[in-house]
Amino acid sequence: MNSWLIEHLQRMNMTDALVRPEGFTREGYTSEETNAIRIFKEIAGELGLTVKEDAVGNIIARWEVPGGEEAAVATGSHLDTVPNGGAFDGGAGVVCSLGAVKLLKEADFSPKRPIEVICFRSEESSRFGVSTIGSKAMSGLLDPAIGTLKDQHGITLAEAVESQGFRWEDLLSAKRSKEELKSFVELHIEQGMHIVEHEKNYGIVKGVACPIRLAVTFNGKAGHTGTTPMDRRQDALAAAAPFVSFVQETALQLNDVYEKPLVATVSTLTASPNSMNVIPQTVTAGVDIRSVDDLLKKKMADAIQSEVARIEQVTGVSVTIEVLVNNPSVLLDETIAEQLFDAGNQEAYLAHRMDSGAGHDVMNMAQMWPSGLLFIPCKDGLSHHPDEHATVEDLKMGSELLARYLMEATKI
Amino acid sequence: MNSWLIEHLQRMNMTDALVRPEGFTREGYTSEETNAIRIFKEIAGELGLTVKEDAVGNIIARWEVPGGEEAAVATGSHLDTVPNGGAFDGGAGVVCSLGAVKLLKEADFSPKRPIEVICFRSEESSRFGVSTIGSKAMSGLLDPAIGTLKDQHGITLAEAVESQGFRWEDLLSAKRSKEELKSFVELHIEQGMHIVEHEKNYGIVKGVACPIRLAVTFNGKAGHTGTTPMDRRQDALAAAAPFVSFVQETALQLNDVYEKPLVATVSTLTASPNSMNVIPQTVTAGVDIRSVDDLLKKKMADAIQSEVARIEQVTGVSVTIEVLVNNPSVLLDETIAEQLFDAGNQEAYLAHRMDSGAGHDVMNMAQMWPSGLLFIPCKDGLSHHPDEHATVEDLKMGSELLARYLMEATKI
Repeated sequence: MNSWLIEHLQRMNMTDALVRPEGFTREGYTSEETNAIRIFKEIAGELGLTVKEDAVGNIIARWEVPGGEEAAVATGSHLDTVPNGGAFDGGAGVVCSLGAVKLLKEADFSPKRPIEVICFRSEESSRFGVSTIGSKAMSGLLDPAIGTLKDQHGITLAEAVESQGFRWEDLLSAKRSKEELKSFVELHIEQGMHIVEHEKNYGIVKGVACPIRLAVTFNGKAGHTGTTPMDRRQDALAAAAPFVSFVQETALQLNDVYEKPLVATVSTLTASPNSMNVIPQTVTAGVDIRSVDDLLKKKMADAIQSEVARIEQVTGVSVTIEVLVNNPSVLLDETIAEQLFDAGNQEAYLAHRMDSGAGHDVMNMAQMWPSGLLFIPCKDGLSHHPDEHATVEDLKMGSELLARYLMEATKI
Repeated sequence: MNSWLIEHLQRMNMTDALVRPEGFTREGYTSEETNAIRIFKEIAGELGLTVKEDAVGNIIARWEVPGGEEAAVATGSHLDTVPNGGAFDGGAGVVCSLGAVKLLKEADFSPKRPIEVICFRSEESSRFGVSTIGSKAMSGLLDPAIGTLKDQHGITLAEAVESQGFRWEDLLSAKRSKEELKSFVELHIEQGMHIVEHEKNYGIVKGVACPIRLAVTFNGKAGHTGTTPMDRRQDALAAAAPFVSFVQETALQLNDVYEKPLVATVSTLTASPNSMNVIPQTVTAGVDIRSVDDLLKKKMADAIQSEVARIEQVTGVSVTIEVLVNNPSVLLDETIAEQLFDAGNQEAYLAHRMDSGAGHDVMNMAQMWPSGLLFIPCKDGLSHHPDEHATVEDLKMGSELLARYLMEATKI
């Protein structure tokens, strides 16, 4: 089983090494993602699953049962990555789901209802600033207006979707009815250290912290760096710098005061014209705020608004704040959490109950279907980084946990 | 004369408007620059000048004299711009130099030695991080090693030069001997407000403040923005932010304490991977420090080094400083300054003696030949900005000043 998991995760990553110095760059709706998905389809076919592609390119690999009218029990994750990301974020969930099917087939298990392994499209937000596009479409949560969002090369989301052989105008037909699925469970690497720190083997997630995301734009005035006196400038970068420091310091302080953790990051910054002898005219900073405590997120966003007003007054640089995303946190299904706990018990794996600081496809699926989220540990909690890694033993545990859960959930 | 200057400046800017909302983007060694230079050659031909192109694409438009063995008196500037810059930075000097020739021709003046109008290539540093490439080559100051410098699209300087029809390996042959020129005078827009504030008409520059330029790179650690606790991060942008603030605040303070002005700007900042859900791993900040007081520049650079050491200690982010440029300030020729003063006197224009905060082609020419620099006012001191503007009256004054000076300098 161990070598099967490694071989097949390598196959979907188009590589014979799961950690590479440059990591993996396989952004949503690129040929790289499509190629990885092609391998996923091959493997699903080899396992005897029937493969369907929906209108936005999600793959539904299905273990059909006689009759087959019952609502399916689904599991899965995604295969896209951030630029220079790792092979496990998304990939671990996909290969463990396929591995679970393999274990059940080898055990000659006969499910009473269909089992699905779903590979979602474009989970990461790195390309278009919007995450989980495939699962949003499947859950009926996709706003067609986002088709005009552009990546850094000026390609719109709609164009990217069409470049991979789909029609943006068909996206609404990717929505599935409540009756088609009984439940959805995702497995993912933890992207943190809580499981290990609590000396447990795996994580069962209670709630997913969805982000508030802001684009904060500082509008200063360009001018020659050599001839514009220091006291006559409206330098957009000099105005943005204390803002970045403020976000970092305020987030640290809020963690001292409040019980639930909060993270806030100025993760992107683009300066224009970004030329050595021109004073920065415009700076746009992207801010990502997360906590399962929605009020705490709001407190952070409010503090940012006050700080921006202060900076405007002190520097004469005007600042605008655009809210890109503001989603409440998502609570997952408690019955499924118990089933996942029981699955661990049967294999003598210890579960840690926790929240997720990161968003995942499951947060959309949970709006429509009872859903659960399993975490397996990853090395040093690292993710979105070339050194991202999970051990083969933990991948095997993941397959076993999913197999036990699927067996239980498809008994009737 | 007024309409001639406007028409011909428009011609070289390929436009019928000298101020446009988007400004002018004509970077060094692009087809845009080459096209503008082609028009320059046409106009020079129309004025009866002979046109030569050197090995790196500088144009030498020459008013030949019988015999023609005498060292020439040269004037000129450049036609490249920063991205979204104005039509006057460089263009004003070029059109005024051509205008001066026109005035002298119309007055049936017969110079005793050749007059040259030089149009230099790639004066701005915005594309390759190195300024005044053409005049460096002509003055024998160009280091062939910079051919490997890349623009933001990965094109090397050598490739860019060759794309415009020249051979990088020939660059050393662009160097001219001391004997070829008697002197060089550049006219440029002031890019500041000193002339107007002193209620004078034009500026005569005593010294040019050459920059110290640093590339400061912060090497942090990438990670997921949603799952990495605030107190376990090595966020490169959070480490760079207090650095940007430090440069701004320290430059302001030094101006309070020291007599000579100093400007210091973090003018470029590039964050990587610059992705909404990844903690910034690497940030590179470009710093531009200028003063005619070289010790004051060094004081600023030393302060930056101490601050970087402090940030490394506090944040755990490692920081490297690369010195891109460190040139001492250049003093210009006093005799030429007197000739430029006399030229103003003859036309009843009032001169302001001043320093230049910006570098210009003349700073290289001054290493080889006695050189001078004239400033004409520009609106609000704005430059490197779409609103950059100089009045036609000031362009006319510029042509008259240069004509008077050339007449005097070529009498014997």
